[in-house]
Amino acid sequence: MFESFDTRQTLSKKDFKALEPGLRAALVDAQFELVQGADFPVLILLSGFDALSRAACAKQLMTWLDSRHMRPFAIMHDEEAARIYPPMWRYWQALPTKGNIGLFLSTWYDDSIRGALLKSDAGFDLDRRLDKIVRFEDMLANEGALILKFLLVEGREEQLEDLKVTKASKHEPWKITEADKRLRTAARKDYDAVLDLAKTIVGVTHKGYAPWVPIASTNEEHRDMAVGKSLLAALKSRLERPAAPERPPAAPFVSTVKDGNVLDTLDLTQTLERDAYKDALKAQRRKLTRLTTGKAFEERSLIVAFEGNDAAGKGGAIRRVVQGLDPRLSRVVPVSKPTAEEDAHPYLWRFWRHIPRRGHTTLFDRSWYGRVLVERVEGFAKSHEWQRAYDEICAFEQDLTGAGAIVVKVWLAINKDEQLARFQDRENTPHKRLKITDEDWRNRDKWDDYRTAVHDMVTRTSTPCCPWSLIPANDKRFARVAVLKTINDRIEAALAD
Amino acid sequence: MFESFDTRQTLSKKDFKALEPGLRAALVDAQFELVQGADFPVLILLSGFDALSRAACAKQLMTWLDSRHMRPFAIMHDEEAARIYPPMWRYWQALPTKGNIGLFLSTWYDDSIRGALLKSDAGFDLDRRLDKIVRFEDMLANEGALILKFLLVEGREEQLEDLKVTKASKHEPWKITEADKRLRTAARKDYDAVLDLAKTIVGVTHKGYAPWVPIASTNEEHRDMAVGKSLLAALKSRLERPAAPERPPAAPFVSTVKDGNVLDTLDLTQTLERDAYKDALKAQRRKLTRLTTGKAFEERSLIVAFEGNDAAGKGGAIRRVVQGLDPRLSRVVPVSKPTAEEDAHPYLWRFWRHIPRRGHTTLFDRSWYGRVLVERVEGFAKSHEWQRAYDEICAFEQDLTGAGAIVVKVWLAINKDEQLARFQDRENTPHKRLKITDEDWRNRDKWDDYRTAVHDMVTRTSTPCCPWSLIPANDKRFARVAVLKTINDRIEAALAD
Repeated sequence: MFESFDTRQTLSKKDFKALEPGLRAALVDAQFELVQGADFPVLILLSGFDALSRAACAKQLMTWLDSRHMRPFAIMHDEEAARIYPPMWRYWQALPTKGNIGLFLSTWYDDSIRGALLKSDAGFDLDRRLDKIVRFEDMLANEGALILKFLLVEGREEQLEDLKVTKASKHEPWKITEADKRLRTAARKDYDAVLDLAKTIVGVTHKGYAPWVPIASTNEEHRDMAVGKSLLAALKSRLERPAAPERPPAAPFVSTVKDGNVLDTLDLTQTLERDAYKDALKAQRRKLTRLTTGKAFEERSLIVAFEGNDAAGKGGAIRRVVQGLDPRLSRVVPVSKPTAEEDAHPYLWRFWRHIPRRGHTTLFDRSWYGRVLVERVEGFAKSHEWQRAYDEICAFEQDLTGAGAIVVKVWLAINKDEQLARFQDRENTPHKRLKITDEDWRNRDKWDDYRTAVHDMVTRTSTPCCPWSLIPANDKRFARVAVLKTINDRIEAALAD
Repeated sequence: MFESFDTRQTLSKKDFKALEPGLRAALVDAQFELVQGADFPVLILLSGFDALSRAACAKQLMTWLDSRHMRPFAIMHDEEAARIYPPMWRYWQALPTKGNIGLFLSTWYDDSIRGALLKSDAGFDLDRRLDKIVRFEDMLANEGALILKFLLVEGREEQLEDLKVTKASKHEPWKITEADKRLRTAARKDYDAVLDLAKTIVGVTHKGYAPWVPIASTNEEHRDMAVGKSLLAALKSRLERPAAPERPPAAPFVSTVKDGNVLDTLDLTQTLERDAYKDALKAQRRKLTRLTTGKAFEERSLIVAFEGNDAAGKGGAIRRVVQGLDPRLSRVVPVSKPTAEEDAHPYLWRFWRHIPRRGHTTLFDRSWYGRVLVERVEGFAKSHEWQRAYDEICAFEQDLTGAGAIVVKVWLAINKDEQLARFQDRENTPHKRLKITDEDWRNRDKWDDYRTAVHDMVTRTSTPCCPWSLIPANDKRFARVAVLKTINDRIEAALAD
C-alpha cells in the first residue's frame, strides 16, 4: 500500500474552494439520513504521527458536518482513568450511539504504536495486541458500526522535520501532549522503523469491514478533501444498503450437548448442616474481607457474574458476599432489560459501564451471559448474534483480566423439583414476593432449552483465566458457602501470581 | 436536639435478634413497593465523625435490603474528579433513579464540615455553604426525592477516644481515608466545637422534607435498629401517600412582561457587510483559540448555552465557535427530549452529565432553559415545576461558576418575518433540511407566548456571574460575530479576575 503511495499529492486552495460547497452539502445530506433513521453508528479513526495534522483535519470535519451529532474523542492528559480502569474502558465509554459519529483522535491503536516504537515494555507483544484489535473491530462491525480508519501519511522529508509546532498557524497553538512528542521523536530517529510498523499494523488490521485509508497529509487541502470524499463515499454506500450486512459464521454452530450435559456432572444432593454452615460462612466471609481490603488487592479488582436457574438462590448468595465486602468499595448491579441508551450501543457497552475501578468490586446479578442464555432461548437475539457472542465475551473477559481484574463466574444449579418448591414458597412469603414474576413461570416451561444453553455456555467460555464454577444449589447453605469459597480461592490464586 | 439526647441508648444482642426478622421483612416489603411502582428515589445520608460506624451501619442496611436496588456512594480516594470537575458533579452522578435507594456515606455536607473544623480555607463561609445545601435539598425534594439524613452521634467519651480502628473487629479492617482521620483528630481536640458545629448544621438544614435524625451510635445494635426502623417508617409513610407532595411557591408567579419585553430593546436592523464580517470573524475566532488554549484557561472551563427562536441561526453560530476551538478539548451537546434514564433523575441531571472538566468546553445547543421556555409554553412541565426552575437554574449556575467555569448564555433573536423567510428557505435547500420540522411550524403559532417566556427567563436568571446576552440575529453575519465577541469578552473578563 505504501510503496506506490505518493505522499506529495496536493490540491490548490482554489480547487479546494471550488469543491468544498458541493462536498459539504453532500456530507450534510448523508448525515441527515444517518441521524434521521440509520440504525448504525459511524466510527472515524484519525491516525498518524502528526498530532497537529490530526487535530486540524478533525476540526475541518467538525465544521463540515453537524457537530451536534459528531463527537470528537481525544485523550489529552495522563488521566487517572488510564491507571484505574482497564485500558479499553475509555474507548468503550466513547463509542457513539446509533445515528451518531465518533471521531477518534486517540484510538485503540495508540498503545500498540507506542509499545512497538518506544520499546519501554519488555513483554510487549505486537501480534497479540493487533489480534485483539481485529477481534474488537470485528465485534463493532458485527454490531453494525461503520468503521473508517484514516492514516495520515507524511513523506520522509516531513517526518524528518522537527515538531510541526512551528508550522502550525501561530493563531492555533493546538496542544501537543507529551505522548505525542515522545512518539514523534522516536519516529524522527528511525523513519524506516515507522514505515515498517505502519505496514505491519495496516497489513494485519486492514479488513473489508474496517478498512485503512491512507491519506497524503503534507498538503492540508488535499488531506481534508480526500478524507471528506472518502467519508462521503462510505456513508452513501452504507446508507444505500437495505440493512447491515451479516457475515456468516466461519462454521455452523453445533451444540456439544449430545456428548452429555456438564450439568449432569453435578451432585445436587450435597448439603451442609446448620452449625457447620454458620462456622464455614463466617470463616469465608472474614476471609473475603481480608482478601479484598489488603494491600495486594488495591491494584486488582473483583468482578463476579452470578448466573443460575430462576430461584436458584442468587440473591441470597449475593447477600452473603455483600456481607464480606466494604460497602464503600463495592456495588451490586442488577441486569435486566437494556435501556434505550444501552440499546443504542454495542451489546457489551452496558456492562463496561459498571466495570469497577482498581481496588473495587462489582457483583453482577445476571450478566453479559444473558446473550447466550435468555436471549438465545427466547429468541431476543438472532442466531448469528448469540453464536458470535461466545468469542466476544471471551475477548471482553480477557480485556478485564489483562488489566488485573479477577473475574469469577458462578452458575447456581438446582433441579426442576426444587425450583417448583421454591416458586411456591416465594409466592407465599411476603418478603420474597419481589423475587417471583410470571416470567419465571414461563421460563420454567423451557427448562430443557436452558439446560442446553448452559452447557454450550460453559463449554465455550470456560477459559483458563475465567473458568466457570458450577455450584450445586439444591441446598442453599451448601451453595452459599461454595460461592464464597469459590470467590476466595480465585482471589487467593490471583494474588499469589 | 442534642441537649436532651441520650447517646448511651443501647439494645441487647438478644433483643436485636428478636426484632431483626420482622424489621427486615417489613423493609423488603416496602422496598418491593418502591421498586415496583414508586416514582421517587430515596436518599439516605449517613453522617457522623466515625467512618467505621458509618460503614458498619451501611453494611447492615445493604444486608437487610435488596442490594440490587440500593447503591452505596463513598469517596475513598483523593480523586482526580474532585480536582477537575465542580464539587457537586460527583454527587449528581451518584443520585439514585426513581425506585432506587442511594446510600450516601460521603455527602455534600463533608466539605462544609471539613472547612469549618479544619479552618484550612480563610475564605470559608459556613452560612453560604449551608444555604446552598438547603437549596440543593429543596430542589431534590421538589423533584420527588425522599431524603433521610442520619446523624450518628457518639457520646463525649467515645469522641475523646482514639480512632476506633482498634475497636473495629480485626476481621473487618474497613479502610479509613486520610480525610476521615484528619477530621476525627480535629474533633478529638475540641469536642465542644464539634457539638456546636453539629447544632449549627442541623439547625439550618433540618427541614420537614429533609429531616435530620440523630442516632445514638455507641451501641451498634441500637444504632442499626434505630436507623432501620426510622427508614421503614419514612418509606411506609411516603408510599401510602397518593403522590409526591407539592409545596406551594412562596409567592404566586407574576410575569413582569407588562412593563415591556426586554426583547423590544433590541435593534434587529443591525447588519455587517461581507468584508467587515470576514475580518471580524477571523479576528474573534483567533482570539477565542488564544483564550481557550492559554495557560490561564487550564484551571477554568467554558460552558455556553445557545438559545434562540427557531431558525435564529444557532447552528451556524455554533459552527463558527467550533472553528475557534480545539476539537480535542471541546464538544457540542444537542439538547432534545430526555431519555428514559435522564427522565428518572432530577431535571438538571442530564446537563450535569455533560459539564466539561477543567480546560475543556461544552457548547449546549439548547439547554437547561428548556424548562422555562418550551416546557413552560407547551405545558410539558407543570406550572410549579417551571416556576421553581428559575431558582434551581441560578443555583446550578452558581455551582459551576463557583468552581471556575465561565458560563455564557446567548439568546439569538429574530423577528417573525425573518423566521418565516428562513423556514421557507430551509425547506427548499437540500443541506438545510435537517433543520426544519413540523414542530418548528407549530412552535411558530405560539410566538407571543415564547416572547413572554423569554422575557421572564432573562429578567429572572440574569445574575452578575451569569448574565444573559441578547443577540440581534436578523442578520446572520452580525449575530455570529456578536456571539463570538460575547464569549471572548466574558472569558477575558473572567481570566482577568
